[in-house]
Amino acid sequence: MLVKSKIKYIQSLGQKKFRDEAGVFIAEGPKIVQELLKADPSTVKEVYGVKEWINENKKLLGQTGNVEISETDLEKISHLKTPNKVLAVVNQFSGGVIDAKDRITLALCDIQDPGNLGTIIRIADWFGVGQVICSEDSADVYNPKVIQSTMGSIARVKVFYTDIKKWLSDQRGTNIYATVLDGEDITQMKKIKQGIILIGNESKGISPEILQLANDRVTIPNKGKAESLNAAVATGIVLSHLT
Amino acid sequence: MLVKSKIKYIQSLGQKKFRDEAGVFIAEGPKIVQELLKADPSTVKEVYGVKEWINENKKLLGQTGNVEISETDLEKISHLKTPNKVLAVVNQFSGGVIDAKDRITLALCDIQDPGNLGTIIRIADWFGVGQVICSEDSADVYNPKVIQSTMGSIARVKVFYTDIKKWLSDQRGTNIYATVLDGEDITQMKKIKQGIILIGNESKGISPEILQLANDRVTIPNKGKAESLNAAVATGIVLSHLT
Repeated sequence: MLVKSKIKYIQSLGQKKFRDEAGVFIAEGPKIVQELLKADPSTVKEVYGVKEWINENKKLLGQTGNVEISETDLEKISHLKTPNKVLAVVNQFSGGVIDAKDRITLALCDIQDPGNLGTIIRIADWFGVGQVICSEDSADVYNPKVIQSTMGSIARVKVFYTDIKKWLSDQRGTNIYATVLDGEDITQMKKIKQGIILIGNESKGISPEILQLANDRVTIPNKGKAESLNAAVATGIVLSHLT
Repeated sequence: MLVKSKIKYIQSLGQKKFRDEAGVFIAEGPKIVQELLKADPSTVKEVYGVKEWINENKKLLGQTGNVEISETDLEKISHLKTPNKVLAVVNQFSGGVIDAKDRITLALCDIQDPGNLGTIIRIADWFGVGQVICSEDSADVYNPKVIQSTMGSIARVKVFYTDIKKWLSDQRGTNIYATVLDGEDITQMKKIKQGIILIGNESKGISPEILQLANDRVTIPNKGKAESLNAAVATGIVLSHLT
């Protein structure tokens, strides 16, 4: 059985303030926990699983601290509507932003919806983009909803928060592509091996002061009447044409 | 002020059973209601708006029945966390499935998540695809969450439910493209002017018995380690390469 203080501690990690103080986040469900353990077991601090899951994953768990808990205790600490066998407390990423040279980087300007941010991280992982830079006003990557919608890709994609205007200004020599509504037809562009791809806020797009730092403006041609595409869908389409 | 029976009636439309009995659905917020009125005012049965919204939209409302209500009443009938000025009761689509010849049709096999279904309808609208066919086990298009995530595209895209296996079998002569994990590279394919594009369930993909009806299997090349893409993102990528 879990002691009350432990339950309270894990519950508190639903809030950004407590997550950041402890330098950890929560990941739930067999898929995400397994991906995190496979990618780098040293990042996984504690695993709380039901008997069946712990027994099936002894090998993968290795040296990682793990506690067998009841379904009832899992319900108490879970942030999911339907708790799913296992919950892990994981260390937040350490290390700073990597230089944008010689790779493709996604730069997100104020993505607000946790589901969109998680889905974008999953898309980055699909297209082999290992680094996502978020403006300081973006949704928190450690929000449980973001972590869940990455479907495990959070284990492989590094996500950093920074003053995006300042960061972009420091990346001279690397092409910056802005996804806008009135740019070059993305389906006609050549594939790239390096560059920064800017994705804007769900309703406001990319702010003018960030936009002026871009070298190329790209657009997904609109053949119908919808005014815009979902930010994650647009990211997927742009990456599939450019990479 | 709205009478109690009216409030109860509108609240009941959150449930499929009552929506289908009445042959209507609910759309909320200025954007979606405006798009529906612009596309075909005859489909909009009743509009409930706050004073400010009704006054600003007198012209657009024209002959459409409308009732000015208080914020308090709007809160009572709204299905949104933050009610947004106006709610409309709209007639469900009438008319049957159109033939797949000479156009592009999206066919969805058991898409379960309402947000995904709504986003796919928005994507169809962006790419000028006017018709979406859903298997009978797909999410209900008239679910308020689906309607909201179409962002108004529900006004322009026709969505039908049918026995998809039977329907596909009747479409001889039209190419059927299945989106799978081991098909032809979508980025290398020629654009098409007609055809049916199959999108599978979020976790199970397309069932074998439907898959055998496809002429072409297409895939979005995976350059990283994610196991799959979100169904809506995959739809957007496939349409951007094929259309």
